[in-house]
Amino acid sequence: MGSLLVENVILDDQKTSIYCNNGKIVSIGEDCNADEIFDGCGYIVHPALNNSHTHAAMTLFRGNGDDMPLMEWLQTRVWPYEQNISSEEVYWGTKLAITEMIRSGIVFFNDMYWDFHAVAKAVEETGIKACLSAVFIDFDDPVQAKSQQKTNERLHIEAKDYSDRITFGVGPHAIYTVSEDSLRWAGEFTREHNLKLHIHLSETEYEVKECVKTHSCSPVEYLKRTGMLSDRLAAAHTVWLSERDIGLLGDYGVLTINNPVSNMKLAVGEVYPYRKLKDAGAVTAIGTDGAGSNNNLDLFEEMKIAALLQKFKENDPTALPAGEAIEMATINPSNFFGLNNGQIKPGSAADFILIDVQRPEMQPMHNLTSHLVYSANGYAVDSVICDGRLLMKHRKIENEEEIMEGAYRAAKNLFARVDKAK
Amino acid sequence: MGSLLVENVILDDQKTSIYCNNGKIVSIGEDCNADEIFDGCGYIVHPALNNSHTHAAMTLFRGNGDDMPLMEWLQTRVWPYEQNISSEEVYWGTKLAITEMIRSGIVFFNDMYWDFHAVAKAVEETGIKACLSAVFIDFDDPVQAKSQQKTNERLHIEAKDYSDRITFGVGPHAIYTVSEDSLRWAGEFTREHNLKLHIHLSETEYEVKECVKTHSCSPVEYLKRTGMLSDRLAAAHTVWLSERDIGLLGDYGVLTINNPVSNMKLAVGEVYPYRKLKDAGAVTAIGTDGAGSNNNLDLFEEMKIAALLQKFKENDPTALPAGEAIEMATINPSNFFGLNNGQIKPGSAADFILIDVQRPEMQPMHNLTSHLVYSANGYAVDSVICDGRLLMKHRKIENEEEIMEGAYRAAKNLFARVDKAK
Repeated sequence: MGSLLVENVILDDQKTSIYCNNGKIVSIGEDCNADEIFDGCGYIVHPALNNSHTHAAMTLFRGNGDDMPLMEWLQTRVWPYEQNISSEEVYWGTKLAITEMIRSGIVFFNDMYWDFHAVAKAVEETGIKACLSAVFIDFDDPVQAKSQQKTNERLHIEAKDYSDRITFGVGPHAIYTVSEDSLRWAGEFTREHNLKLHIHLSETEYEVKECVKTHSCSPVEYLKRTGMLSDRLAAAHTVWLSERDIGLLGDYGVLTINNPVSNMKLAVGEVYPYRKLKDAGAVTAIGTDGAGSNNNLDLFEEMKIAALLQKFKENDPTALPAGEAIEMATINPSNFFGLNNGQIKPGSAADFILIDVQRPEMQPMHNLTSHLVYSANGYAVDSVICDGRLLMKHRKIENEEEIMEGAYRAAKNLFARVDKAK
Repeated sequence: MGSLLVENVILDDQKTSIYCNNGKIVSIGEDCNADEIFDGCGYIVHPALNNSHTHAAMTLFRGNGDDMPLMEWLQTRVWPYEQNISSEEVYWGTKLAITEMIRSGIVFFNDMYWDFHAVAKAVEETGIKACLSAVFIDFDDPVQAKSQQKTNERLHIEAKDYSDRITFGVGPHAIYTVSEDSLRWAGEFTREHNLKLHIHLSETEYEVKECVKTHSCSPVEYLKRTGMLSDRLAAAHTVWLSERDIGLLGDYGVLTINNPVSNMKLAVGEVYPYRKLKDAGAVTAIGTDGAGSNNNLDLFEEMKIAALLQKFKENDPTALPAGEAIEMATINPSNFFGLNNGQIKPGSAADFILIDVQRPEMQPMHNLTSHLVYSANGYAVDSVICDGRLLMKHRKIENEEEIMEGAYRAAKNLFARVDKAK
């Protein structure tokens, strides 16, 4: 990997340059010879964003059923297609998602989807970073449980063949789709190998009620019992939580991921208890969820809606201020996933974005933090640097048309095949 | 005004052209000689958007105080500056707002702000359409009341000097800032001259409680008593409503304007009762409110958040489906304000936008309506035609840099002047 000098950028109101080598920011404001020089045109430097929960390839399902009850949507618009999706289709759906994420300043995503290698291939080719878990579902069937455990043991080894930008994680889908035996296995296996865990947790009232019926405890307590709670656990949604649940998530330092758009769109009926989780010591982060239930992957929009929903729910305009919303999309997930990318300083990962504030919605410039959360959307991002490489130059990404075309064809083929078989 | 032919656009999945003359769509799909020919590049034609409630010039206050309690924000970050704002500053703030609105496909806005003529001048120059009311506040003072009434009588006459794109409306700010005498006057004056009325209504619980204390009835009932309720009344917010209020707003065919971002950001604690208002017969519309409490003027974002908030509040993912959200930003306000612009057909006003779907977040294209509400933001708009004139061509607006510079200087001067006097 060559060195990169990004010139003429604004950092702390000063014009400066950033020199990157070996994936790191080496120096700021020093004259350096670099293999590549990029003109930052006076744009503002900001840490790149990290998307803590998504199902990237679900871009293929974008807009294919909205405004529908959750189960009807899943049963008629998602599952019949996912059961028949090919590796190539997952690959193109993921490439489209990554292109969309880069365009809105995201350089890392925490994913859970079918076909680990198809997703990993897309990540490798595009230059982004990701923690990838395969969907782990065994429906309480011992044969499927063993098979899934073996698959994950195998993927953990195979994943080592990819670059350092890809981390393998274990992704038990949810407590109601994975057996207790597999949850215990996942807790142990990830402890032994120091891997991240990725789960959907306490997303609906139904999940909580069924858990109490079956296990006589809440989903969070059930995860404690099965050895899943730890500071390696990334838990998406976490909206239906008791005070005791919140205490446990805090005690263990779990990454709790706010997905406000998905939660509102699917009407799950509760709101991520941001302040309580933070106060309890849980790590707070934000994610877009998949494009099927969002329907875009723009973390700027997600930060705004997260802040608005907290204010609404708490009946308090000071709830989740803009600066903390940005932390949930930068430094917090950086610390959890070991990305070293939430700050612009020598020694940090060279993961940053250039923001163009010469747009009507970003003027006048009273306060950058406010503008990023409340005024901007992903189009404010002019250029994206990940691991010291330019993934987007002045809104241009390599092969963008080819990727849109590939994803279009993948969706068309998938839908035609499944609809024909109906 | 010359004729315009917009070629190579997609309408109902067919490539076609649209011929406009005298501000109207004259024909679709016919070969016509036009003074100007514009290549639509295969973009999709869609009715332009109408923003039913804003305070355009408040772009100057964008990001100058967020995450604050409402009264503290108004008292420290808005009112001291508004008391000292000059005509020129209002003019530049409005120009910036209009530029931002055109960029996200808005061709009409319903405004309430200080200095009618400064706002009207900005509207005239930019080619957009607007219903403009001056802020009418008399704080129950009979002298101020008379003076405000006289001012509005004068403005009503002076407004006739502007082009047809500008309509004069009367804007009593709210029931708690305007005397009963002036409300009665406004009801009568607007009935006599067939003018629109623009008010903030039932925005906070405090407003309702104080009204019950003072007038022994709800704000809506109080407007009925003062002769303000009619199908010429545009009422912003309308969140704290009783069943009886909703019935009255429906009986009179009032335009009720949903401002979800502002309501959430300021934590007003209630949600616009969309379904009930619609079922009662009220006209439903959507607005951005001013940039001080949003902080952008993007109706695409507003439609998404409106749909999400309804689903969340009703605990029902089918609440406010995408197609109805679009109606609230197009045909509904068109009918109320007599804009004749919510549809693409011969005889309609030539107010339409071209949508570029060749973007990652708009692919694959299962459903345009879904994509416009849930995936797009204002940047999906490639070109804007208002009154048969091109206000934005392939994302370029005339004098855009000059307007941003002017607004920047206006904000800087205003804040420096007031902060120095502190």
